[in-house]
Amino acid sequence: MNPQVGIIMGSQSDLPIMAEAAQFLEELGIAYELTVVSAHRTPQRMIDYAGSARERGVKVIVAGAGGAAHLPGMVASLTSLPVIGVPVKSSNSIDGWDSILSILQMPSGIPVATVALNGGKNAGILAASIVGAYDAEIGKKMDAFKTGLREKVEESAAQLEEKGWKAVLKK
Amino acid sequence: MNPQVGIIMGSQSDLPIMAEAAQFLEELGIAYELTVVSAHRTPQRMIDYAGSARERGVKVIVAGAGGAAHLPGMVASLTSLPVIGVPVKSSNSIDGWDSILSILQMPSGIPVATVALNGGKNAGILAASIVGAYDAEIGKKMDAFKTGLREKVEESAAQLEEKGWKAVLKK
Amino acid sequence: MNPQVGIIMGSQSDLPIMAEAAQFLEELGIAYELTVVSAHRTPQRMIDYAGSARERGVKVIVAGAGGAAHLPGMVASLTSLPVIGVPVKSSNSIDGWDSILSILQMPSGIPVATVALNGGKNAGILAASIVGAYDAEIGKKMDAFKTGLREKVEESAAQLEEKGWKAVLKK
Amino acid sequence: MNPQVGIIMGSQSDLPIMAEAAQFLEELGIAYELTVVSAHRTPQRMIDYAGSARERGVKVIVAGAGGAAHLPGMVASLTSLPVIGVPVKSSNSIDGWDSILSILQMPSGIPVATVALNGGKNAGILAASIVGAYDAEIGKKMDAFKTGLREKVEESAAQLEEKGWKAVLKK
Amino acid sequence: MNPQVGIIMGSQSDLPIMAEAAQFLEELGIAYELTVVSAHRTPQRMIDYAGSARERGVKVIVAGAGGAAHLPGMVASLTSLPVIGVPVKSSNSIDGWDSILSILQMPSGIPVATVALNGGKNAGILAASIVGAYDAEIGKKMDAFKTGLREKVEESAAQLEEKGWKAVLKK
Amino acid sequence: MNPQVGIIMGSQSDLPIMAEAAQFLEELGIAYELTVVSAHRTPQRMIDYAGSARERGVKVIVAGAGGAAHLPGMVASLTSLPVIGVPVKSSNSIDGWDSILSILQMPSGIPVATVALNGGKNAGILAASIVGAYDAEIGKKMDAFKTGLREKVEESAAQLEEKGWKAVLKK
Amino acid sequence: MNPQVGIIMGSQSDLPIMAEAAQFLEELGIAYELTVVSAHRTPQRMIDYAGSARERGVKVIVAGAGGAAHLPGMVASLTSLPVIGVPVKSSNSIDGWDSILSILQMPSGIPVATVALNGGKNAGILAASIVGAYDAEIGKKMDAFKTGLREKVEESAAQLEEKGWKAVLKK
Amino acid sequence: MNPQVGIIMGSQSDLPIMAEAAQFLEELGIAYELTVVSAHRTPQRMIDYAGSARERGVKVIVAGAGGAAHLPGMVASLTSLPVIGVPVKSSNSIDGWDSILSILQMPSGIPVATVALNGGKNAGILAASIVGAYDAEIGKKMDAFKTGLREKVEESAAQLEEKGWKAVLKK
Repeated sequence: MNPQVGIIMGSQSDLPIMAEAAQFLEELGIAYELTVVSAHRTPQRMIDYAGSARERGVKVIVAGAGGAAHLPGMVASLTSLPVIGVPVKSSNSIDGWDSILSILQMPSGIPVATVALNGGKNAGILAASIVGAYDAEIGKKMDAFKTGLREKVEESAAQLEEKGWKAVLKK
Repeated sequence: MNPQVGIIMGSQSDLPIMAEAAQFLEELGIAYELTVVSAHRTPQRMIDYAGSARERGVKVIVAGAGGAAHLPGMVASLTSLPVIGVPVKSSNSIDGWDSILSILQMPSGIPVATVALNGGKNAGILAASIVGAYDAEIGKKMDAFKTGLREKVEESAAQLEEKGWKAVLKK
Repeated sequence: MNPQVGIIMGSQSDLPIMAEAAQFLEELGIAYELTVVSAHRTPQRMIDYAGSARERGVKVIVAGAGGAAHLPGMVASLTSLPVIGVPVKSSNSIDGWDSILSILQMPSGIPVATVALNGGKNAGILAASIVGAYDAEIGKKMDAFKTGLREKVEESAAQLEEKGWKAVLKK
Repeated sequence: MNPQVGIIMGSQSDLPIMAEAAQFLEELGIAYELTVVSAHRTPQRMIDYAGSARERGVKVIVAGAGGAAHLPGMVASLTSLPVIGVPVKSSNSIDGWDSILSILQMPSGIPVATVALNGGKNAGILAASIVGAYDAEIGKKMDAFKTGLREKVEESAAQLEEKGWKAVLKK
Repeated sequence: MNPQVGIIMGSQSDLPIMAEAAQFLEELGIAYELTVVSAHRTPQRMIDYAGSARERGVKVIVAGAGGAAHLPGMVASLTSLPVIGVPVKSSNSIDGWDSILSILQMPSGIPVATVALNGGKNAGILAASIVGAYDAEIGKKMDAFKTGLREKVEESAAQLEEKGWKAVLKK
Repeated sequence: MNPQVGIIMGSQSDLPIMAEAAQFLEELGIAYELTVVSAHRTPQRMIDYAGSARERGVKVIVAGAGGAAHLPGMVASLTSLPVIGVPVKSSNSIDGWDSILSILQMPSGIPVATVALNGGKNAGILAASIVGAYDAEIGKKMDAFKTGLREKVEESAAQLEEKGWKAVLKK
Repeated sequence: MNPQVGIIMGSQSDLPIMAEAAQFLEELGIAYELTVVSAHRTPQRMIDYAGSARERGVKVIVAGAGGAAHLPGMVASLTSLPVIGVPVKSSNSIDGWDSILSILQMPSGIPVATVALNGGKNAGILAASIVGAYDAEIGKKMDAFKTGLREKVEESAAQLEEKGWKAVLKK
Repeated sequence: MNPQVGIIMGSQSDLPIMAEAAQFLEELGIAYELTVVSAHRTPQRMIDYAGSARERGVKVIVAGAGGAAHLPGMVASLTSLPVIGVPVKSSNSIDGWDSILSILQMPSGIPVATVALNGGKNAGILAASIVGAYDAEIGKKMDAFKTGLREKVEESAAQLEEKGWKAVLKK
């Protein structure tokens, strides 16, 4: 089955963050591909990747990078598919601001759908919500995922109210 | 025809920014709806809007707000459709940082696809790219839009090289 | 006895900060309730909580959350009781700025009484000062609390002046 | 009738912001007093003001100041009444950050209920919500105020939906 | 004569800033070329430009861009010539931070020689200093330029000391 | 009479700010000198100025500069007299942050007494307070200056209380 | 002998930073006093301390505090002696910004001589430079201190040049 | 052979960062010199170093410093050679902002080629690219270096695609 989501990252050091996107898609049964593509070190590879994504059946690209993070924006300039950008807080980053602003503040004409700092999982969820807007089965799974989030909070609240905060805090 | 994109904003004062999203969708022939929904002043209206969006045929929601901008994130919590957030630089904003961070830094589980400050047009383009990932005709229009962006830069470059920067600057 | 202060938090991971509010209220003998309510994962629970607070006898709500912290502001939109917001510095927070600005920069009409980053104890003190403005006994306890703060500093100063800073620093 | 809310500001130049608090209290029929008290230029006046507030019947103090804004925090150190702080964006302010952080980041033991930058009106609303927590009549007026906010948004939405955004934008 | 410095910008709107670089090079008699190249809208043009620069005799590239400014860094990834980056404060920029960080914080391996915000003239001077490090005649002109800077300050100081600050301020 | 305070600035464009220091010293009858000295454009002049200050009888140096403001810190490295630094918000400054941090964050061993952004007057007052710590007559004038500050606030408060804020605001 | 420098801090937890000021003054043989004075917890003690400083022979006050640091500015409002402020990076500080801005951005009329974050030693040096501007013997010691700084760098440079950076780095 | 690149740093504590520049130049066979020069503690040494650099055959100077980092800018004011500045994140730095802004935001006339925070290696690469613009052999080595960067990413991508992200993450 063709991958519906393409996950790329600027460096293998971004993998711990970006793997969370893959993990979520896997849990929802959405086919994906994952690899390393560097805007600065492999520009031709980036062009080839972005240029062929639509014809390979990809619907959404998730791109993560740190520092002066150009990968998400450059990929968005090379395809008309939606691109989700994940700012990664790399070493020597200035608290993540560099990565966030390099991805978020794209000029008019070339948007990147930016998620929170180190938001690999949220990028996966956002990609799944796009797939689920058109695929009813995935849409239902997304609703179930939201129900799960709610239930976990309710359990946590019930536990806290029942045992009291002192008992919970001690653990 | 059912609206495919729902555009909402926290206050009518956000309209000049958010109208750019509507304008772009109109140019591409994508049906949309546009209204005011305030997270803080009409919470029930927000819940009704978000809760009924999927069954009304909406595929993507675009939500803009300024200051402590809760609308995009709250709508994202109330639907499993993709939500695009537009940080609007309102009066008394702290240079837009409040709006950006309130929309971008969503917790794990509830992503918002954030675009640049005052990026109403980019939100429209991003929404169209999502529609275009599944609708081949829109996909082609998006490719044509990108070609148009390229051509405008090429014309601008040709003019600058031909006339020289002094002549261009004088105008 | 009805709780006079309602303490809520977006996630159980905020408990170490928010428990300090509960601890202070307990020391002053002010009845309170404490639970988990998530704006993003349990929106209906939040609406029910905020909507019933006044009739349950609650006078002040203390709400803590991290990242794009919408809980305090959303609760403030759902009740006309005073709401104290505690910005919590969660993991992946951008030094706490996201949480502070999401709580502080509320639009005109819907204020949140924001305290310092991780200021759980200060939220408890502020809640007690509100109760103490109307309950003379609590007001006296608040005055005594301030006296205690002063005495601790005076003891610390006396010790420092008597022993000298070198001896104090060595410890 | 004794003033229930004391409004003070560090300089007469803060009056346009702080008058919005007075205006709101007046509309709700809450007695207030308003004057200039400078932490840096009239420290003794500040001590006298804060020290006598409770016995004069004041329930809440609203204090606004700009730059290195010490007035709200110093007043909070001199009374056990709740103190609401309004960061004012003065000339030569660094985008308001100085004022916000000087008021918000109070040490443990001495909270200030901080509202948004230039949030004079919100300070008045917050003060009224505190009064309204104990005074049922004011509480009802606060509920009515919230209803008014909702209705204004609904009217604005109805107008926008009816006339269309192009017509509204033209005005 | 072949251009020794290539000046490019992401948009014609950057011309007022970037023309200052051209102006300085012209005054020093250093051959240059100037055009528009957009990383996001004309990626292929950028690749061609950067790829052919060395063989066309260019020694230094000066690239200016605003917002999420990817042009300088992408050009630096596509050539081994030195690249000077000029952060331009565009409309909707967040005080220029986005542009500065997108250019400055390049990952290890791909440096960009970043100058101050809107520092078009300084970019021209820096390019000339590189040329002047290898071309003795330009080196002498650069020394003369520095002497000129010194003399202007000395004249200004002499005038101020002679006339007194009150007279100078009146003008 | 020898100047007791030396006022210098990096550029004549800083004069409107720095003249406020001169103005205050003049009002207190403290002899001063004022000129332009640029760290970057007249380094030798800076060395001569700083190196001869003590023997010329100067007790305090006030140095103002904008952007990457090196003048105050470099002068502090060249003399053992106290140096007061005034961050000036120049054009193309990043909201004044560059100037503030370049002056304030001096390394261990070389302090600069930094005042607020554009705080020319405060620099003059600080210089006068240093002179006044050793010169009883100036000390008394400083006390009188503080009394004047207090009286102005008291008058402003009396006017506001008497006329009411509505009347004052109308003016 | 009367203390010439008064060192105060808002909390004993600031002692490790503030002791560096005392240490430097001791090395130069300048008499000082050191104690804890809290603006927020012991306001009367602060007023007494500042009000009596001049008559006790104090020439300069060094005040350190963290968070919303009001001590230096309030002391400056209560005396006409020069006040040096030390921003201390306390726990829950927002990277020290709160402390820096609360001390630096004083309003016109009440300057504080602010030094770098955690700059206790630099505050001691600045105090000594003020004393040394009027006391020739201390002035000479300050010159000798500067010579010592220079010699340490020269030794470090000689060692690095002689042994090579690889050998030095290995250690 | 004369050094073509001069590497200096404000303090030996900057050596771990600045040695990366030396290391890179060594790998490319570019002669360099490396030593400690402090703007604040050895101003005369700095003047001598910068003033003699051109005649000693140096083509580029690389200068690193932390905090209020004046060394790169002051050296740039003392020579007409290109100066590369490396912001070093020292202890007590405010997240590196002080160092970045003190180096980057140089006034018109005196540029510094600023690289990323702690970008010692990138400074070496930038210096080599300047040498390589005029020295064909070094130019070829720079191209080879870029090829090496590309190959490493390709290997990393191949490994990731072959083994799968779960296997790679486990390591």
